[in-house]
Amino acid sequence: MKSNKRPTKAIVFDAYGTLFDVRSVAGAINHEFPGMGSAVSDKWRAKQLEYTWLRSSMGRYEDFWKVTESALVFTCHDMKLPCDAATRAQLMESYLHLDLFPEVKEALELLCRRPLVILSNGTLTMLRAVVKNAGLGGMFTHVISVDEVKIYKPRAAAYQLAVRKLGVNRKDVAFVSSNFWDAAGAKVFGFTAYWVNRSGATADELGITPDATLSALTELAEFVKA
Amino acid sequence: MKSNKRPTKAIVFDAYGTLFDVRSVAGAINHEFPGMGSAVSDKWRAKQLEYTWLRSSMGRYEDFWKVTESALVFTCHDMKLPCDAATRAQLMESYLHLDLFPEVKEALELLCRRPLVILSNGTLTMLRAVVKNAGLGGMFTHVISVDEVKIYKPRAAAYQLAVRKLGVNRKDVAFVSSNFWDAAGAKVFGFTAYWVNRSGATADELGITPDATLSALTELAEFVKA
Repeated sequence: MKSNKRPTKAIVFDAYGTLFDVRSVAGAINHEFPGMGSAVSDKWRAKQLEYTWLRSSMGRYEDFWKVTESALVFTCHDMKLPCDAATRAQLMESYLHLDLFPEVKEALELLCRRPLVILSNGTLTMLRAVVKNAGLGGMFTHVISVDEVKIYKPRAAAYQLAVRKLGVNRKDVAFVSSNFWDAAGAKVFGFTAYWVNRSGATADELGITPDATLSALTELAEFVKA
Repeated sequence: MKSNKRPTKAIVFDAYGTLFDVRSVAGAINHEFPGMGSAVSDKWRAKQLEYTWLRSSMGRYEDFWKVTESALVFTCHDMKLPCDAATRAQLMESYLHLDLFPEVKEALELLCRRPLVILSNGTLTMLRAVVKNAGLGGMFTHVISVDEVKIYKPRAAAYQLAVRKLGVNRKDVAFVSSNFWDAAGAKVFGFTAYWVNRSGATADELGITPDATLSALTELAEFVKA
């Protein structure tokens, strides 16, 4: 695999869906609404992303905590589930305690001779909490939130923020996401883009192909130069 | 209802989902894939919209015909349906022959003392075909496609195109859409925005409330001054 390896000055990870399993909120949902965990978490996630794209498009940024809560409120209304303030707080809290995907720790240990970075739509408060609660404190040289530029991925300004913070050339950044659209946005921006497709998801038809598709984060070690 | 009436120099309609029922492609889908019409048309539509938002965000505009076809290709891959070039052409053709919602003709006749306009993500070729095939030829003073500015709704530049073409003040435009996010984008832009919610859909939690919600297009006559 040596010929595939690229010079890599930093490895930048998306957080939600890539390191942290957003579907792990299903447990807390099942506690409130038995049997509904999977359906609610899928719709909640889809609306959360939709709202980031729409808000970027309308020039009406609101931070990811509020967007996540708005998406939850929509989902409960839409599915006719009662969602008072206490229930909402309980479910939102689960977003700070997401499970890691099983191979994440091993992958970060394999890769940690380079700067490891998070670039996420989440607010710094959300990201610091979820990193700490997952036992990843100290693993990342930078935890970067798009909240600093108040625009969501896949807008170029969001990826540019990482370049500015890290002081590296965009082509020397390996960007890793399980969200195809995010890997595509990173590729358009000029990062070397890796799509982690653990679940065998269908690639989006956006006319953009990531530099490689991985079935687990640990495979990344084959692609980045030591 | 007189106190609700606002001066209206033009009535601008969204096309897909507002005048034309995008779910009417289910018939053609059922012909190709028996029993799959509803599931395929829902996913096709959701992906079509998602791709417009993502492409706007990534600065990778492609016209709505191509986006619609890409969304169809994704949907077929994702649902493991064979979709060769002939099938694809057949299903795409159905986008030029969408059904009108039942009350549209009556509503347009009620309203036609003012300029009636279409402002749509669709290309001019798509819009002219679907208007003609639905028997609405001659009803609209302007059929405007965002293809002229190569950016999708709800970006302000898309709504601005209508203002420029019509030579009216944005506050004197009544904008009508069944897509909540589109009515919201129009409201943010400064149009008087009407959400036509025929199906009892759940309002999105975007922090924006349209000026009024209608259950059918004919109700619009109560809101615009003669």
